Amino acid sequence: MSGQGRGSISSKDLADLIGVNPWKIRKDFSYFGYFGIRGVGYEVDNLSKQIKKILKLDVVHKAALVGVGNVGSALLMYPGFGMYSFDIAAAFDNNPKKVGRKIGNVVIGDVSNLRPLRARKIKIGIIAVPHYAAQDTADKLVEMGVRGILNFSPRYITVPKKIKVITIDIAMDLARLPYYMPSC
Amino acid sequence: MSGQGRGSISSKDLADLIGVNPWKIRKDFSYFGYFGIRGVGYEVDNLSKQIKKILKLDVVHKAALVGVGNVGSALLMYPGFGMYSFDIAAAFDNNPKKVGRKIGNVVIGDVSNLRPLRARKIKIGIIAVPHYAAQDTADKLVEMGVRGILNFSPRYITVPKKIKVITIDIAMDLARLPYYMPSC
Repeated sequence: MSGQGRGSISSKDLADLIGVNPWKIRKDFSYFGYFGIRGVGYEVDNLSKQIKKILKLDVVHKAALVGVGNVGSALLMYPGFGMYSFDIAAAFDNNPKKVGRKIGNVVIGDVSNLRPLRARKIKIGIIAVPHYAAQDTADKLVEMGVRGILNFSPRYITVPKKIKVITIDIAMDLARLPYYMPSC
Repeated sequence: MSGQGRGSISSKDLADLIGVNPWKIRKDFSYFGYFGIRGVGYEVDNLSKQIKKILKLDVVHKAALVGVGNVGSALLMYPGFGMYSFDIAAAFDNNPKKVGRKIGNVVIGDVSNLRPLRARKIKIGIIAVPHYAAQDTADKLVEMGVRGILNFSPRYITVPKKIKVITIDIAMDLARLPYYMPSC
């Protein structure tokens, strides 16, 4: 809406977009001390800025990708990360044919040396390696100071409690469909 | 566990694996009329079969992929779908250079003709096209009898109420990380 030049939005319109009740919108924002203007609603630019701040998306986050196979390559080319202030600033693979190659803005490094993560203060790791290498990769990322991991490998990984892991299992997302589909 | 030859598992072990309370495991299964054996727990093979049945994953589901770019190619090569009885049985693109090419087991068809979906009774569509083509693709899939859509395009799509849509926004998943990461 900001890109479309819209100045303000009511809690009702916001609620309709998301599919919740307007009072829930107003209540949730009020928790953060943010209140709309009666009869006008919320200023779009300011609201967007506040939400980004709440979600800690008001600064650019550098991420390092480990594993530049099909999934990893797709991630490197994916244009959507910028929208949330993410920057895949480094990528690593164990295939000598891939090391040194440039994909997007990133030159692929050798996975046996992840020390650049520490030097460059990269705190987010993305695991896109085969499942049998996932735990080892996670261990190395944590060792290099990573605090959050996005795991594309269909394998639970174990990390110290203070590290946040989000696992994306595309097959499992697909598997949710039939349950909700009418009679098939 | 089935693959590892494990015969049974207790509700406690299951609960520990998932991170919930054992009574929740027992209660949830009991809703489906499925009860473990006291002192033994649940038979792994039978439990797995029952859960697949509940989730409607006891039959193979054919899916059609539209858009064979970076994300689409990664999906075609992804080995994890078989685990949930999914089969990407058809793929389509609008690029004449891609049409006719074979990726994995699938020959890419021309997106201007999605009629094979109806003929082959494919009820699941996967949208991996650029965002501006997402809604049009969804409309065509629904027209061809698709009842469930997995949407990889970062765009809300509008479909009739009876159609189930699951949107996967990888950037948004990544964006969830900083909020939960300790002080960074």
